[in-house]
Amino acid sequence: MFEAAELDHKVDKAAYREEEAELRRALLQAQRDLGAQKRFPVLILIAGVEGAGKGETVHLLNEWMDPRFIEVTGFGLPTEEEQAHPPMWRFWRALPPKGRIGVFFGAWQTMPILERVLGHLGKGGFAARMEEIMRLERMLAQEGVLLIKYWFHLSKAQQKKRIRSLEKDKGTSWKVTNYDRKLLEHYDDFIEVCEPFLRETSTGEAPWTIVPAADERYRALFVGRHLLSTLRGRLDAKPEPKRAAPAAPPAPPDRVNVLRALTLKQEMSRDAYDKALAEAQGRLARATRHKRYGETSLIAVFEGNDAAGKGGAIRRLGAALDPRAYRIVPVAAPTEEERAQPYLWRFWRHMPRPGRVTVFDRSWYGRVLVERVEGFAPEPDWRRAYAEINDFEEQLVAHGAVVAKFWLAISKEEQHRRFKEREATAFKQHKITEEDWRNREKWDAYEAAVCEMVERTSTGIAPWTLVEADNKLHARVKVIATLADMLEERLRG
Amino acid sequence: MFEAAELDHKVDKAAYREEEAELRRALLQAQRDLGAQKRFPVLILIAGVEGAGKGETVHLLNEWMDPRFIEVTGFGLPTEEEQAHPPMWRFWRALPPKGRIGVFFGAWQTMPILERVLGHLGKGGFAARMEEIMRLERMLAQEGVLLIKYWFHLSKAQQKKRIRSLEKDKGTSWKVTNYDRKLLEHYDDFIEVCEPFLRETSTGEAPWTIVPAADERYRALFVGRHLLSTLRGRLDAKPEPKRAAPAAPPAPPDRVNVLRALTLKQEMSRDAYDKALAEAQGRLARATRHKRYGETSLIAVFEGNDAAGKGGAIRRLGAALDPRAYRIVPVAAPTEEERAQPYLWRFWRHMPRPGRVTVFDRSWYGRVLVERVEGFAPEPDWRRAYAEINDFEEQLVAHGAVVAKFWLAISKEEQHRRFKEREATAFKQHKITEEDWRNREKWDAYEAAVCEMVERTSTGIAPWTLVEADNKLHARVKVIATLADMLEERLRG
Repeated sequence: MFEAAELDHKVDKAAYREEEAELRRALLQAQRDLGAQKRFPVLILIAGVEGAGKGETVHLLNEWMDPRFIEVTGFGLPTEEEQAHPPMWRFWRALPPKGRIGVFFGAWQTMPILERVLGHLGKGGFAARMEEIMRLERMLAQEGVLLIKYWFHLSKAQQKKRIRSLEKDKGTSWKVTNYDRKLLEHYDDFIEVCEPFLRETSTGEAPWTIVPAADERYRALFVGRHLLSTLRGRLDAKPEPKRAAPAAPPAPPDRVNVLRALTLKQEMSRDAYDKALAEAQGRLARATRHKRYGETSLIAVFEGNDAAGKGGAIRRLGAALDPRAYRIVPVAAPTEEERAQPYLWRFWRHMPRPGRVTVFDRSWYGRVLVERVEGFAPEPDWRRAYAEINDFEEQLVAHGAVVAKFWLAISKEEQHRRFKEREATAFKQHKITEEDWRNREKWDAYEAAVCEMVERTSTGIAPWTLVEADNKLHARVKVIATLADMLEERLRG
Repeated sequence: MFEAAELDHKVDKAAYREEEAELRRALLQAQRDLGAQKRFPVLILIAGVEGAGKGETVHLLNEWMDPRFIEVTGFGLPTEEEQAHPPMWRFWRALPPKGRIGVFFGAWQTMPILERVLGHLGKGGFAARMEEIMRLERMLAQEGVLLIKYWFHLSKAQQKKRIRSLEKDKGTSWKVTNYDRKLLEHYDDFIEVCEPFLRETSTGEAPWTIVPAADERYRALFVGRHLLSTLRGRLDAKPEPKRAAPAAPPAPPDRVNVLRALTLKQEMSRDAYDKALAEAQGRLARATRHKRYGETSLIAVFEGNDAAGKGGAIRRLGAALDPRAYRIVPVAAPTEEERAQPYLWRFWRHMPRPGRVTVFDRSWYGRVLVERVEGFAPEPDWRRAYAEINDFEEQLVAHGAVVAKFWLAISKEEQHRRFKEREATAFKQHKITEEDWRNREKWDAYEAAVCEMVERTSTGIAPWTLVEADNKLHARVKVIATLADMLEERLRG
């Protein structure tokens, strides 16, 4: 794997100077086209052996291209803020938008490799982390990110030679730290971990490119040429034609489904409601003030038919919480900034720290609901979203969060009654639009989408709760009581 | 996940009869179109809860369609023959060719789930097995296999009810075994393992479809409709347009590469050769007769420039081996039968049992050499082949094989000399064709492909050995001695 990188590559000064000028011009042009097209973001991962000129290469890229549109992020040990979130959170935050180049210095591979070299991570744990990385990278690739992964390599002899030559020169000997010497000692252990890592994570969508790093000029031209050709390849490619929509899924053999199986009209008197709501709110309040709640967090997702009463339920939930500790995220059509990012980016931004509560009024499930039904997302995209969402929620749960998902279901008749009521009531008129009536016409398509969503994403770690919501009182109590149940169980566990 | 499957689904007899006739006609038509188009194979996985009508459903499919073109394979505990090969081998053997339907009963998921339920497999090991399965399924999907995965589900209550009702009837009570009763006891453990399994392995390319299995007629129509719609969707889809070839990879900044770094002309006298060859052959013979050799096997891959002397080296290798214990597999253009299968299928067939040697005269590397250079495989296909080949070899090595890969390299001048010599020598004329001269014109493209192949697939577990072959004597000795070294190391280890 490293055979080619360890050869004695050389580029002389004259050849370098001659090529560099043209390379810079072409790279700058590619960067301008990227910014003008705004079709995809570019993410460059910089990794590899210590002292192999990774930093110098990033400097060079900034020098060659317009640094205002290159965002370099260096990831060291996670900060307190970063530790308060799932491991992938800090990378999501730093993703470049469409039209821009992001450079990640020490990205998601650094910690697993380091932990494995130091023996803090076993073979199975390491395999699981590689798998996480591959899933993330595949998803980024499918979302259109041009992912370019450079691995800077030096052989042990080249590494040693570099340290010796730095030491010899008084002007540079300060650059050699004990850390460098220690790394040299562990060179073989490091390579033993990196080799299978590179092998496993070099996928068709996102292979590693090994950069022979011993000769400075060779290294620079190697990366420059590779980057240029990869950028140009994608910039000049014609956008892929839209695939024909596949056949509609078969109708099920009977009319029974999880929504129709619900008894939407549940009895609840105002008195019973007042009592039950107060009790559930009390339980929830106690749970979120519990000393062990600091180790967990609550992510509550609300989806439901239009006019199903999400807002009312969320208000009753908020009433039970410390206003400093919770946040409501209303999810509407994505902003321009959000559209320039992979789909899940806008949700990652809002993930709570431990000890907090985040309430999503509509959520990432829009991908498999409105985007599916309205045709905003092509079928292959919403199809893979189920697995991506399960992955996403798995990361949240693995980090300690309780993920509670509610579908508020009302009957078609009850919806009609509420729409009419909204139209007739002055202070409710803003809540009803033409679009609501149009959505209503697609009732059956939405119903099929909800059923598939529940089947594919109601998991042991993050189950859906279907809430019968023709009676708002019942719905609110069920939501708050379910949240209290889930939190109490977590605090016990 | 199982919410919908556990509802009380029902289809009455009259409705069933009415639909069944039309469904059969349409399924049979789809099967005929599949056979006529011969564009892709269909692989149906049947899995799920015990007693959920899996067998009945397969009977039904055979009844509804033409059973001559449906091949059902049931996988139980691995046979002795199967245990003598890597775990995935038996599934590769049974893959259906293009135009046919294969049904796998208890495929690759059965053993990992069972071992996990019984506690023989830890969490990490189970995750690794799921990962293997996902890689295999993704590869099959990318190779064009239409993979349909049915998971037959019964709730615990439905399961219990079924057993009770079988027991009550004298005609069927014999069907209930102690095994069934035991499974019912372990129902919860089973589901606890299956739930995350289904979640993780439901990918965009190959999701599981959960079949509500309690009602016989519902189950039958559910599967029938789903199968029909999936088949028709793929049969009626227009073939995807060929993508434009991407830009050629950038030229490296210097002329140094792993091939050019070789000193192709190595000195070796006839006397030294005789001695060294005999010694290496002796070591190899002893190694393959060693009592511990029965735990391993040798897979030797020969690739090289045309006329580099692969045949001669292979003959000297054979001379050192027990003729009953080794086999040479010459790899030419794939046969019609082989073209109807995923790419690696034709190599899986030839994998040796422990204690044997298999020599490949050309190999699976054709994908990233001739198929790449000649444009037989589109770029995305040969790009992903590196990872697929690494996976493949990893499975062989994990099963105990030593995988040795040789690239026999000669200079362009030496090749010219040998071509001319072949043309001039009567008994060698069959060895030189127009095609050889044509390939020679693509020397540089082949060189680039070989360098990338070595970089991406020379791994710690299965390294490439580059053999300087301008002098045939040197080349032969180096090959046999390297094999002896590798085997001796394995036998020591």
